[in-house]
Amino acid sequence: MAHYGAKVVVPIDLKKKPWEQKHPLHNRWHPDIPVVAEVKDGEVFRVEMVDFSGGGITSDYSAEDVKHADQSIVHYLSGPIRVVDKKETPAMPGDLLAVEICNLGPLPGDEWGYTATFDRENGGGFLTDHFPCATKAIWYFEGIYAYSPHIPGVRFPGLTHPGIIGTAPSMELLNIWNEREREVEENGHKSLKLCEVLHSRPLANLPSTKGCHLGKIKKGTAEWEKIAKEAARTIPGRENGGNCDIKNLSRGSKIYLPVFVEGANLSTGDMHFSQGDGEVSFCGAIEMSGFLELKCEIIRGGMKEYLTPMGPTPLHVNPIFEIGPVEPRFSEWLVFEGISVDESGRQHFLDASVAYKRAVLNAIDYLSKFGYSKEQVYLLLSCCPCEGRISGIVDAPNAVATLAIPTAIFDQDIRPKAGKVPIGPRLVRKPDVLRCSYDGNLPTTKNPAASM
Amino acid sequence: MAHYGAKVVVPIDLKKKPWEQKHPLHNRWHPDIPVVAEVKDGEVFRVEMVDFSGGGITSDYSAEDVKHADQSIVHYLSGPIRVVDKKETPAMPGDLLAVEICNLGPLPGDEWGYTATFDRENGGGFLTDHFPCATKAIWYFEGIYAYSPHIPGVRFPGLTHPGIIGTAPSMELLNIWNEREREVEENGHKSLKLCEVLHSRPLANLPSTKGCHLGKIKKGTAEWEKIAKEAARTIPGRENGGNCDIKNLSRGSKIYLPVFVEGANLSTGDMHFSQGDGEVSFCGAIEMSGFLELKCEIIRGGMKEYLTPMGPTPLHVNPIFEIGPVEPRFSEWLVFEGISVDESGRQHFLDASVAYKRAVLNAIDYLSKFGYSKEQVYLLLSCCPCEGRISGIVDAPNAVATLAIPTAIFDQDIRPKAGKVPIGPRLVRKPDVLRCSYDGNLPTTKNPAASM
Amino acid sequence: MAHYGAKVVVPIDLKKKPWEQKHPLHNRWHPDIPVVAEVKDGEVFRVEMVDFSGGGITSDYSAEDVKHADQSIVHYLSGPIRVVDKKETPAMPGDLLAVEICNLGPLPGDEWGYTATFDRENGGGFLTDHFPCATKAIWYFEGIYAYSPHIPGVRFPGLTHPGIIGTAPSMELLNIWNEREREVEENGHKSLKLCEVLHSRPLANLPSTKGCHLGKIKKGTAEWEKIAKEAARTIPGRENGGNCDIKNLSRGSKIYLPVFVEGANLSTGDMHFSQGDGEVSFCGAIEMSGFLELKCEIIRGGMKEYLTPMGPTPLHVNPIFEIGPVEPRFSEWLVFEGISVDESGRQHFLDASVAYKRAVLNAIDYLSKFGYSKEQVYLLLSCCPCEGRISGIVDAPNAVATLAIPTAIFDQDIRPKAGKVPIGPRLVRKPDVLRCSYDGNLPTTKNPAASM
Amino acid sequence: MAHYGAKVVVPIDLKKKPWEQKHPLHNRWHPDIPVVAEVKDGEVFRVEMVDFSGGGITSDYSAEDVKHADQSIVHYLSGPIRVVDKKETPAMPGDLLAVEICNLGPLPGDEWGYTATFDRENGGGFLTDHFPCATKAIWYFEGIYAYSPHIPGVRFPGLTHPGIIGTAPSMELLNIWNEREREVEENGHKSLKLCEVLHSRPLANLPSTKGCHLGKIKKGTAEWEKIAKEAARTIPGRENGGNCDIKNLSRGSKIYLPVFVEGANLSTGDMHFSQGDGEVSFCGAIEMSGFLELKCEIIRGGMKEYLTPMGPTPLHVNPIFEIGPVEPRFSEWLVFEGISVDESGRQHFLDASVAYKRAVLNAIDYLSKFGYSKEQVYLLLSCCPCEGRISGIVDAPNAVATLAIPTAIFDQDIRPKAGKVPIGPRLVRKPDVLRCSYDGNLPTTKNPAASM
Repeated sequence: MAHYGAKVVVPIDLKKKPWEQKHPLHNRWHPDIPVVAEVKDGEVFRVEMVDFSGGGITSDYSAEDVKHADQSIVHYLSGPIRVVDKKETPAMPGDLLAVEICNLGPLPGDEWGYTATFDRENGGGFLTDHFPCATKAIWYFEGIYAYSPHIPGVRFPGLTHPGIIGTAPSMELLNIWNEREREVEENGHKSLKLCEVLHSRPLANLPSTKGCHLGKIKKGTAEWEKIAKEAARTIPGRENGGNCDIKNLSRGSKIYLPVFVEGANLSTGDMHFSQGDGEVSFCGAIEMSGFLELKCEIIRGGMKEYLTPMGPTPLHVNPIFEIGPVEPRFSEWLVFEGISVDESGRQHFLDASVAYKRAVLNAIDYLSKFGYSKEQVYLLLSCCPCEGRISGIVDAPNAVATLAIPTAIFDQDIRPKAGKVPIGPRLVRKPDVLRCSYDGNLPTTKNPAASM
Repeated sequence: MAHYGAKVVVPIDLKKKPWEQKHPLHNRWHPDIPVVAEVKDGEVFRVEMVDFSGGGITSDYSAEDVKHADQSIVHYLSGPIRVVDKKETPAMPGDLLAVEICNLGPLPGDEWGYTATFDRENGGGFLTDHFPCATKAIWYFEGIYAYSPHIPGVRFPGLTHPGIIGTAPSMELLNIWNEREREVEENGHKSLKLCEVLHSRPLANLPSTKGCHLGKIKKGTAEWEKIAKEAARTIPGRENGGNCDIKNLSRGSKIYLPVFVEGANLSTGDMHFSQGDGEVSFCGAIEMSGFLELKCEIIRGGMKEYLTPMGPTPLHVNPIFEIGPVEPRFSEWLVFEGISVDESGRQHFLDASVAYKRAVLNAIDYLSKFGYSKEQVYLLLSCCPCEGRISGIVDAPNAVATLAIPTAIFDQDIRPKAGKVPIGPRLVRKPDVLRCSYDGNLPTTKNPAASM
Repeated sequence: MAHYGAKVVVPIDLKKKPWEQKHPLHNRWHPDIPVVAEVKDGEVFRVEMVDFSGGGITSDYSAEDVKHADQSIVHYLSGPIRVVDKKETPAMPGDLLAVEICNLGPLPGDEWGYTATFDRENGGGFLTDHFPCATKAIWYFEGIYAYSPHIPGVRFPGLTHPGIIGTAPSMELLNIWNEREREVEENGHKSLKLCEVLHSRPLANLPSTKGCHLGKIKKGTAEWEKIAKEAARTIPGRENGGNCDIKNLSRGSKIYLPVFVEGANLSTGDMHFSQGDGEVSFCGAIEMSGFLELKCEIIRGGMKEYLTPMGPTPLHVNPIFEIGPVEPRFSEWLVFEGISVDESGRQHFLDASVAYKRAVLNAIDYLSKFGYSKEQVYLLLSCCPCEGRISGIVDAPNAVATLAIPTAIFDQDIRPKAGKVPIGPRLVRKPDVLRCSYDGNLPTTKNPAASM
Repeated sequence: MAHYGAKVVVPIDLKKKPWEQKHPLHNRWHPDIPVVAEVKDGEVFRVEMVDFSGGGITSDYSAEDVKHADQSIVHYLSGPIRVVDKKETPAMPGDLLAVEICNLGPLPGDEWGYTATFDRENGGGFLTDHFPCATKAIWYFEGIYAYSPHIPGVRFPGLTHPGIIGTAPSMELLNIWNEREREVEENGHKSLKLCEVLHSRPLANLPSTKGCHLGKIKKGTAEWEKIAKEAARTIPGRENGGNCDIKNLSRGSKIYLPVFVEGANLSTGDMHFSQGDGEVSFCGAIEMSGFLELKCEIIRGGMKEYLTPMGPTPLHVNPIFEIGPVEPRFSEWLVFEGISVDESGRQHFLDASVAYKRAVLNAIDYLSKFGYSKEQVYLLLSCCPCEGRISGIVDAPNAVATLAIPTAIFDQDIRPKAGKVPIGPRLVRKPDVLRCSYDGNLPTTKNPAASM
C-alpha cells in the first residue's frame, strides 16, 4: 500500500509568536538562512504559515493596528525547505523547481482575514494620494466563501493563493538586487518621472536589521548582524519569484522556480484568501494564516533549457507559472477602462501604471453610486477576484488598461440601466470600513471634476 | 409578425476604395463629420467595415506593403451613425449609449487577415527596439478558426471584436485632446523618462491634413481644410472609446459610450479576428474587413448617473464595458512574468509598462525554444487570445505584469518538463514570417545575457 | 496565396420548395439516393438547409400549421455529399469520416425560428399525455441571441447545431433498421411495458412512399417506387448518426461518422438555433433554416481502429463526437430531479426515461410559479440550453435523472428564497404560446396531487 | 467580533466502528431515529462521516472484501441533525430546508478512496452482465487530485460531493416507499420488461433487521426491532433526497430539501471524492470518509411555495438543487453515443437506460484501445467527472444518450486521428484493477460482433 496524505514539514502554532515556532520564521531573502526541513521530489508535503504580519494585525474592529503597523517585519515566511531528488541529490543551481499546489486553505480554527490600506506616512498604497487614511475590513470565511461585516452586500468564493513563493537567491543575485534598488531609492526622485503619479513611498525597501528575523539564527549574534545587513526585503517580486501576488496561483497550479542555491531553499508565506489583480490597497488581499500542500519536481538543467535570461547576467530570469482548470469561474464581467491621462488631465506616454490608476479610480466612483463608500470599494477591488488587464500598449500616446469585475459577487445588479440606479433601493452600505484619521501633511490628489 | 434580421446601414463593396463607398469612410474624429445613417433605439443594424488600412496592406506574400505603409490614413471607419429613440429624439450630450454586439465576423468572401509589425522608422511597435524590421503573417479563416502558413503549428478560434468603437467628440473635448497630446509630443522627450524604455515613435499623432478622409466632405474644400486641421487621429483610445483594443468585446458584449454630440455619431472600424492583450506588435491583431450587428439603447442622462469624470472637466470620463458568457474558453494557461527591471538591469519604480515588456520578452524567448523564430512568436502573442495582467502594482519597487497564453492553441505540449523540450522533435517552424530589411540606423536593444 | 472562404456546395433559395432547389432535397436514408456534390478532404465547404419542415411550419402567429403538420415529409436534408481524398479516392466503407463544424448559423435574411409541440394524435411529444394540444412559439434572432414574443422574459445565446448529420447506410444496415423497427411497431404494445408511461405514438416510423423525396430521383418512377419503399425515415438517430440531436455540436465540434458506402454520402439538416437536452416537446428545438461550414477528414480504416461494434454485426456501431471550447458557458444552474416513480406513484426499475419525465414535470411546475403558463415552460425547456443528466442508474429501484437550467436566461431571479416568490411582482407572462384545441379522445394524465 | 469557523456537530474517530462513535451512526431512514445534534439557521457546522461501508472495504490490495461485502449495512450516515431557526423554533413539515455546502473534503489523515464493482451475485452494477467479477481500484489523493496505481495514466481533480444528503421521512412517506418498492420486488419480473436488459439485482431493497443500525437506539431492544422492520434502506434516492448521487453537488452548491418531520432531521454520508454521472459500477464513485461544512436556511412553507407534488399525495415531491461557479472546468470532451438498441440488436422504445448502457459500453471499448483493460475503463467511467446526458428522448423509437469524457484527465491524446492510435506507443496499462473470480452461474452478455 502506498503512502498517502501530506507530511507536515512546517507546523504553525497560532498561540506562539513567529520566532517561537518549532521552525522559527524568517522575513528576509538570503542564501545563508538555515534550512528547516527537507522534502523529496514527488512527495506531497504541508507547510503552514502565519499571516504576513505574524499576528500584528488582529481581528479587532479597529484600524489602529494598521495605522501603526511595523513595516520592518514584513513578511513572515515559512522555510527554507531543501528539495532533494529520490536519490537524495539536492536541487542544484541551474535547475528548475516545479512546485505543484495540490491544496491550500486557511489554518483550521483561524478562518478569518483582513484587508487594509496603510496610512500614507506608513507605506500607503496604489491610490494613497486619494485615500491617505489607514482603513481595515475584517472578513469571515464560510468554507470557500468570504463575507465582511464592513463591506456588506458582497460574498464571493476565494481564489486562494500564496502571495509569496520563492527560492533563496545566491549572493551574486542578492548583490544585484541590493545595488539596483539602492540606485532607485537614492536617485529615483530625480530620474523617474513616474513618481509624480504614483505616490506610495518609499521607492524601495533596502536591507534593514530592524525587524529582521532569520529563522534559526539567533538575533544579535555576529552571524545575524552580517546577514541582516545584506538580506533583501520581501516586498517586491523578483527573479526568485517571491511576492509576485499572482492571484490565480490556486489549487492545481504549478510554479516553475529557478534554483540559485543548493537545495533550492523554498520559502512561502503571505497567504491570501482572495486578491484582485494589482492588490491595489497594498495590504490588500484578504490576508490570513494558512497552509499549502505542495509537490516538487526537479527539472535538471531547466534554467538553461527553459528560461532565457534578459539582462546583464544569466541570473536575470523570471519564473514561469501554469494555471489549471480548478478555479471559480465567472461568466459576466463589468469592465472599467483607464487611459494614460492623469487626474490633472496631463497626457503620459503609453504608461500602463497611470492607465490602471485611472481604471481603478473609475471603478471606485462607479460602484460608490450603489450605496458603498469609496473606501469600501477601494478595499473590495483590492481583494475580490477582479482582473486588471493591459489592453492596449501601442496606440501612442495612450496605454489602455482595464479592470474587470465579476458581477456575481454583488447582491444587486450593478450594471448600467435605462431605469434608475439600482432597480431596488440605493442602499447605504453600513457599517463602513474601520478607519483612522490621517495626521500627516502630504497633499491629497483632488479630482477637479468631482464637484461639477 | 415582428421584423427580424439586421438592417444594413453601412454596406461595403470590397472592390471599391474607402472613399468610393456608398457611404464614404472617414479616418479622423471630429463633431462635424457628416452622419451617413440613422438607427433607432432597439433596432438591430449591420455596419460593414474595411480593414484599418482600407486595402493598403494586402494578402500578398511580401512585407513591403507593411514597411512602406502610409500611417496618415489610419484607421478607416464606418459611420458616423446617428442614434435616435423610438420617438425620433436623438441621443443628446450627457446620455449614455449602450451598444450591444449581437453578432460580428469577417465580410463574406473575404475570410482572411494579417498580423504585422511596422518598420522602426515607420511606427514600430511595443518591442521595436528588439524587432526593428517590418514583418507580416497572413491568416486564413476556417469558420471561427484561424491558421497561418507563416506561423505553422497553431490554430485557434477567434475572439473577434472591433478594435475601434466610439462616439464623436464635441469641439470642447477635441480641443482637450489636441492640447494634451501636443504637449507630450513637444515636451515628452524632456519630461518623460518612460521614453527611455518604450521606443516606438512618434510620441503622439497630431492632426494632419495628409491622408485625411472625412466621409461625405469633399477633399480640398474649405470645410475639409478646416476640419482636417482640427480632427483628432484615431490611433489612441480616448474618452469617446475609440481605439480601445479590448479583445473581449465580442458577441454578447455591451459598450456604454458617453454621448458628446447630438445623435451620438457612432463610428466603428479596425475589425480584429483575434487579438492578444496589448496588441504588442502594433499592427498586431489579425486585421480584417468585417461586419458588426449592433443594437443601441439610449440611457438618458446616463453620463451623470453612471460616469464620474476624473480630471479638470466633466468630459474627462471613460466608457464602461460588459462582457458576456459567449467567448472561447481555455482551461489551461502558461504564464510569463515580468518585473519592472529593464533589459539593462535598471530598476524602475512600479512601472507596469516596463514589467509587461519583460513578460512579453520572456514569453518570446521561451516559445522560440519550441521551433519558432522570435518574429513568429512576437506576431503570435500580438494576435492570439493571450491575457496581459497587472498582477502587482504596490510592491515597491517592482510592478509585476503577467502574460498568460492558452496552451490549447499549439499542436504540441509547450509546458516545461523534466524530459527534454519538447517530447517530440523540436521542430523548426517553416516557413517563417514575411519580412523586410531594416534600413534605418536606430540602435537595437541587445539582451546582454543572451550569448552567455 | 492560399484559397480561403467556404465553397458553397448546396445552396438554398428560400423562395423555392425543397424539391425545386438547385440540388433537390431528400427526406429518407438510402444508399441509392444520388450524390449532389463532391468535396475534398481538408476543404472548407458550405451546405445550406431549409428547416426540417421545408417551410410547412411558418412564422404566422397560429398553431394550425403545427396541428396539421404532415409527418410524412420529415426531415428535408441537404446532400448527399460525396467525400474524396486529395488523390480523388473516395471515402470507403470501413473508414471514419471526421467532420469539423467550422461555422454555422441561420440563413441570412431568415433570422427566425419556431418551437412547437404536435397534437397528441399527430406525433405528440415526451409529455403528450399531459399536454395534448398543438402549441407554437416564434423566436426572433438578434445575432447570437433569441427571444420570443410568446415566452416573454427570457433571452439567451444559441448553442446552434445541426439536429441531423449522417452518412448513408448500406443496404445491409438499412435492412437491419427496417427489421428491428418493424418488430417494435408490430409487437411493442404487447412486449414493451415502457409504453405505459411514454405516450407519444407511433412506436416507430417505417418506410412510407407518402411524402417521400429522394433528391434527383423523379417521383413516381420505378426507381423512386423501389427506393421509397425501402428507405428509412429520418426521425430516430441510428448507427449512421442521423437525428442524434446532441445540442453541443456547435462551432468547433467534430463528428466522427462511420462510412458505409463509397463516398460516405454525407447529409445534413434539421438546423437548431438552440435545443435543450432531450428536445422534449419533439418539434422542440428552435427550428430554422441555416448553413453549415464543414471540413472533412477521412480516417482510413477508422471504423475498425476506433469503433467496436456492439450487436449482431460489425455494422452495429455509433459515431463519436468531440466538443470544443467554443460555446456559451453558464456558471449557475438550478437543477430539478426525477426518480423512476411515475405520476400514479408506481415504482419502476432503474428506468431513466421515467425519471427524466418526472424531472421535466417538476421543472415545469416550478417555473410556472414565476408567472409562466405550463405550456410556455414546456416549450422553453425543450429549446433553451438546459442539460438532462442521468445522475444515478444503479441504486435500485430508482434511476435518478436531473434537468439543469441556466439561471442567467431569465430576467428575474428564479431561485427559491426565504422571501416570497419572486422578489418583484409575480408577473403573468403574456402573451402566451399559440395553441390549438385538442380534439382527440385519448386520456390526459392527471397529477393526483395537483389539486390538494 | 463575530464567531467564525465551523462548529463540529458530528465528529468521527476512524479508529472506532460506526456504532462506537460519539454519535453512533445509522444506516436506515426512519422518523424515529433519534437526533444527535442541533444546529441553527445561518450557522456553519461540520459533519464528519465514515465511508459508506464503515471501513468494511479497506485499502488492501485485494478485491476479496468487495466480493464478500455485506450489503445489509449500506450506507452508514451521520446524523440526524435537528435544524432550528434563530428563535429556536424547529423546521416544520412543509418547510423547505436550504443546505449550502460551504466546504468538504476527505478526513485529514485518511486521504484515499476506492472504486469497485460488486460480484454479480452480490449487488452487481449497471453492466454486471458484462462484468460479473468483483473488482477494486485504490485511489490516493494529492490535495484536490486523485490517482490510482490500478488505473495508471489518469489523474484528475475531484468534483467532491456527498452521495447522500436527506431529511427524515414521515411515517406516511415511509409507508409509501415500502409499499411501492415491495410491489416492484414482488411483481417486477413479471411486469417490467426492462429487467431483461438491466441485470443488477435485487429489484429493490426492502427493510431488513439484518445489518440495521439506528444510531442511539440499542440493538435488540423492542424499539429497535419495531423501527428496523419499518425503516427504509438507503440505496435509492427518493422524495427526501437521499442517495441522489448528483456529482456536481460540490463546494458552493445548495440543496433545497423538503421537510417531513419536526426539526428536519438531516443526515449525510457516502462521501465521494469524485463520481461520473450514473456511478455505473455501483460501488462506483471514489468512496471515502470525509467532512462537510454546511449552512442551513429554513424557508417557511417552502414545500408548498416551491415544490409541486407529482403523484397521489402531497408528499410526492423531489428536492431542488443549485450548482455554483466553483467546480473544475474542462474545455474539451470526447462524447460517446448510445441508442436504445440492445446488445442483441433488439429495438427498444425510447428507453434511455438501454441507450445509456450502449453509450457506456461504446466508451469502454473505445478506451480499451489505448492500453487499458475493460475493467479499468469501467471503473474509471464510474468515478471520473464524465457527464451522462439524455440527448434525445422523442425521436421514436430511439432514445439517444451520450457519455462525455473530459480529455484532459488522460496523459495521452485519446482523440481519433488519421495516424495510428495513439501518437506514442500503445501502452499496456499495468498493473490492472484488483479482481476476484466470478463463481456464480448467471450468464454473461456477449457482444456478438466482438470477435468478427
